[in-house]
Order: sequence, then C-alpha cells, then structure tokens
Amino acid sequence: MRATLIYGAGDVRIEDVPDPKLIEPTDAVVRVLRACICGSDLWPYGSRPATEQGDRIGHEFLGVVEETGSEVSGLTAGDVVVAPFVYADNTCEYCRAGLQTSCPHGGVWGSQGVDGGQGEAVRVPLAQGTLVKLPVGEDSALLPSLVTLADVFPTGHHCAVTAGVGPRTTVTVIGDGAVGLSAVLAAKRLGAERIILMGRHAGRTALGRDFGATDVVAERGAEGSARVRELTGGFGTHTVLECVGTPATVETAFEVVRDGGTVSRVGAPQYSEVPLGFPVFGRNITLTGGIAPVRAYIEELLPDVLDGVVQPGRVFDRTVGLDDVPDGYRAMADRQALKVLVRP
Amino acid sequence: MRATLIYGAGDVRIEDVPDPKLIEPTDAVVRVLRACICGSDLWPYGSRPATEQGDRIGHEFLGVVEETGSEVSGLTAGDVVVAPFVYADNTCEYCRAGLQTSCPHGGVWGSQGVDGGQGEAVRVPLAQGTLVKLPVGEDSALLPSLVTLADVFPTGHHCAVTAGVGPRTTVTVIGDGAVGLSAVLAAKRLGAERIILMGRHAGRTALGRDFGATDVVAERGAEGSARVRELTGGFGTHTVLECVGTPATVETAFEVVRDGGTVSRVGAPQYSEVPLGFPVFGRNITLTGGIAPVRAYIEELLPDVLDGVVQPGRVFDRTVGLDDVPDGYRAMADRQALKVLVRP
Repeated sequence: MRATLIYGAGDVRIEDVPDPKLIEPTDAVVRVLRACICGSDLWPYGSRPATEQGDRIGHEFLGVVEETGSEVSGLTAGDVVVAPFVYADNTCEYCRAGLQTSCPHGGVWGSQGVDGGQGEAVRVPLAQGTLVKLPVGEDSALLPSLVTLADVFPTGHHCAVTAGVGPRTTVTVIGDGAVGLSAVLAAKRLGAERIILMGRHAGRTALGRDFGATDVVAERGAEGSARVRELTGGFGTHTVLECVGTPATVETAFEVVRDGGTVSRVGAPQYSEVPLGFPVFGRNITLTGGIAPVRAYIEELLPDVLDGVVQPGRVFDRTVGLDDVPDGYRAMADRQALKVLVRP
Repeated sequence: MRATLIYGAGDVRIEDVPDPKLIEPTDAVVRVLRACICGSDLWPYGSRPATEQGDRIGHEFLGVVEETGSEVSGLTAGDVVVAPFVYADNTCEYCRAGLQTSCPHGGVWGSQGVDGGQGEAVRVPLAQGTLVKLPVGEDSALLPSLVTLADVFPTGHHCAVTAGVGPRTTVTVIGDGAVGLSAVLAAKRLGAERIILMGRHAGRTALGRDFGATDVVAERGAEGSARVRELTGGFGTHTVLECVGTPATVETAFEVVRDGGTVSRVGAPQYSEVPLGFPVFGRNITLTGGIAPVRAYIEELLPDVLDGVVQPGRVFDRTVGLDDVPDGYRAMADRQALKVLVRP
C-alpha cells in the first residue's frame, strides 16, 4: 500500500510500504477513508532533522474495519470507525478515569512500529479499546465532520471542558487555526455567553463567528490584550482557551484572563517554562488543559455531529488525494489552507 | 503605642509609634488581642535590605474594636473581630466573586501608611468590609484558633478547595510548616480519604497526624517522590497541596501528582517560572491556587472553630509578648518554633 513518510523539514513523501497485517490478537486492520493533516504535523514539517530513513506520519483517520484479531470483540469487517489520535486499551485505571492519553499500554500513531494515519490502511493496536464505531456508511456526507472526532474537535472540547466553560462564562480563544475554531465551537456548544476570538486571518475568523464567536480581536500582543480588556470592562474573561502553544500566546493568555480565572492550553507547548511567579500567584490564575484524551469524549460529541447540531468538518478548506499530501503540507505551512482533508 | 518594625534582614525592633486614629470615615481602630508571626514574614526577615527607616510588619491579628468611622455599620466598640491578611471593601465585583485579594480598593497591612498587625493597635481601612465579628469575649480560650482565621487556616483551606479536595481524593501535602499542617487539617475537614504529609520535622509531622495525615514521608527530593509513588501504587495522588513555594518543592509537586491531577500552591513563590512544557502538558496536570482570599472563607470555617471540630490554633507552639517579638522571629527562622503567637 501507499503511505506518507516524513524525511525531514519540508520533506514529506508518498511511498510504497508493506500492507498492514494483524500482529497481535488485539489488532485490527482499518482501510482509511479519510485522514487529515494536523497543525501539530507542521512542527516536524518545520524542524525535523533530515534522515536517510523516513518516519510514518498522520494521527487523524477514519476508515473501514477490514480484519480483526481473535481478541477483538464488538467490531467486524465493514464497520466504519474513527480512531482517536492516541491508541489505548480503554480498560486500565487511567482509561477508566477518562485519561486515555496516559494509558501505559497506549501510544501514538506513526511511531514504534505503528502505522501513521496518512496512508491507505493502518494496523490498529488495542483495536477494541481504541476504535469507535460510527453508525454511517462509507459514502456518508458526514465523514469530514466525523473525522474531526479523531483529534481537532475533541481537542477544542477538552480545552473548554478543563477551563470550566459553561453558561455565564466569558471566554477568550487564542488562535484562529483549526483547534482554535474548534474551541470556539465547543465553548458555544457548552453555552458560553461570550466568546472573543483572537485571530487575524479574516477567512478563519469569519468561520469562527459562524461557530459562535461574539467578538473578534485581530490585534496581537499588548495591543490585542488591551482590546480584550476593553471589551470586558477592564477585567478580562473568566477563561482563556490557548490554542497555539507559543511563549507569546501564553503571555497573552495571562494578560487577558480575569483574576481568579482559568487558562486552558491545548496548543502543543513550544516552550518549557511558564512565567507563573508572584504576579500570577497573586491573581489566583489556574493553568489547566493538556493533550486531549479524545477517546473519553467521542461518544459524548458524536450525537451532535450526527444530528448536524455542530459541523466541525467546516474547518476543512482543502481536500487532497494521497499523492497530493505533500502539497497539503505546503499549503498548511504557508497558511494557504486552514486544514487539509486527505481522501486516500 | 508600641509596634513591630523591620529595618533589614534579621533586624526587627519594637518601637513607640503614633497611636492609630480614624482617618477615613470607613476606618475602625482595633486594639490587638492576638497577632502572629507568619512564615511569609520570614522572607523579609531573611533578605530585606537594611534601611534607615523601618517598615511596620505583621498581617495576622484579632482584636477589639475601639472606635469606628461614621460610615462603618455593623461594628461597635467592644466587638471582638478578626482581620483577614488583606483588607478589602467586600462590595466590588471581585469581592462579590469571593476574590477579595483582587479588590482594587484593598491592600496589605504594613504598607502605604497602613499599620502592621504586630502592634498594640491597628487602624483598619474599609473596616466594614474587612473585619469579621466573632461571638466571643476578650478572654476566650479560643483566641489562638480564631486568630488563625486571619491567614494560615483559610490559606490551607484555599489550597485544598482550589485543588478540588473532597471524599475519594488522595492528597499529598508538601511542607510541615504551619500552612502545610493547616492544609492537612483542611483536607481532612473536606473528607479526603488519604493525606500524605511530606515533612521531616518529627514534632510537626506528629501534629500533622493529629490533624488527619494518614502517612508521613520524611524523605525529600527524588527519594521523597519515589516514596509517595510507592505508597500510591505508582500513580501519585490526585491532588498536591504545595505549601512551601521553592523551585524544589514545586518540582516535587509535579513528581508526586497523578496524571490528570491538580497541584495547588499557596506557598508564596520563591521562583518566577514553572517548568510546564510538554512533559506536564502530556500528563494533563493542572496548576491552581494562589494568594488566599481569606475573607471569603471566614464565615464558612468559623462554626467548626467555635465548636472545636477543628483546632487550627494547635500550630502555635510559642507565645510571646510584644517585647519578645524579635525573639519570636529568631525562633521561627531557626525552626525552633513552628508558629509564634503574639500577645501584646
């Protein structure tokens, strides 16, 4: 079969690789119907050292079960399934607590002999715990929104949930990428009364307004923070959903959060320290969030996706075949595409 | 009257100062019955640059109202009252939200022309919002426990509350100082099922056991963290109450917290950055806490103190008169005293 490999910064290739086969009795083989390129794929795309040997890449996919191992129950060939971006047994103490990202038996796609999602098929370890069956056919028009359940929509949801967003909560979302827009959608779905989206790409913030943003702040840095303060009577918002992950956006987050409020982060940290000394301590700011345990949220979010109450698939503004995945990376890296859907 | 002033590191003096008088119509004058030396007083005692002019010091006190301004209602001469360590109007938006430490009209004792608590009397700004009347007489045996409502007990309570401690929560308390022991007491009062106290001063940890600690870990650093992990099946505890505030104790906090858990901090930060990069992000750890809005908790904690359900005053192991306050500082700095009660 063919799959995507990354060889270094800016060097993504489509190559022939061995067809996936069952190895463990807990495996399944899934033929990929839709995959995506994630904002976090752009970090290795921007900085991975060049190597002779490539790595499989891609961690968001939805597909059809082709084969299941002898210890997999509840899934049969022909089932349409979505895979969270971390596989997990879904039975251990962490999984039962809804923290599948900490499952000691789990892992991420594209590493340690596990296939990446941007290919024709994937061997899925711990298939019974990992895969969620979707009550749709292979040709469903909902596939784009359903594949967002692999990562981007539940990641936005995790950000909003850990921040404690609810009715009467004011929210600032930092970042108009696919995660930021998904966080807007999630905050709206949870009833937030006011959602200020910080982003300066007009096309994206327009979608943000459709998703529920009540205000858009295009300014960045101190100017942007001042604008959010102005919009909130000087206080800032109860919660800030930090969906970028740079030192500058984290600094902005603490500037726009209200005293006693919560900053939640889901942007993969491009920093190792956070300035949380006495000034933040004195304001009683909470920092929460982290890598989203997507598996914990899929069943909860699925009905609203199936009913069309939310349409998270609107974040896709480009669809490519497998051969054009390298173009998709370029388009996302150049900010010409918001998020790329892959149709192998 | 006489009051305590600090002139530099290790240099605390008792001096004659002008008697407090009403200045604003919202003021009251309170004669001090009991004051305390706080662990946080030891920071200036350890490092304040020497100056010609001293600063008033002390922020924990309980006393008798002597006089009230024309705009103070609900308080009359003779009332026994406790003052939180931050004064506040208790009517603004932040105060109504229970965050009196962010009151824009509030401030701290001993600065900007406001008296310190370690003296014979104090002019209390915003008296009606700040002071809480206590239904006891001047000679009540409960005064030591009641004066802890000014800071140390509600600070431990704030740590436990923001961490989300409740029944079924496992807790690690870092620090066997008065705040750490108060956090143990607060966690127990909130129903925590298991409380591991990290501290190595046997007399203090013995009081910690009386307050509700189920385990004591005397080891520090990596060894201490390993011991907590061992006690919790390798997981760590759901919550960690960080009651010291050094880089080393914050590091320990992240080592002993369970994935998905919460570190709450009330130890005044002796650091400006916290290592919260990808490893902590990947574990979904929340960092919360901050300077305790004591005023928000006094009414809630008061009944249990009056009924003797909790005896937070047991943290005092030395009582001094005003003249011996410098000795009290020395004893606390040398760790010969856990917490010093002042009886002017």
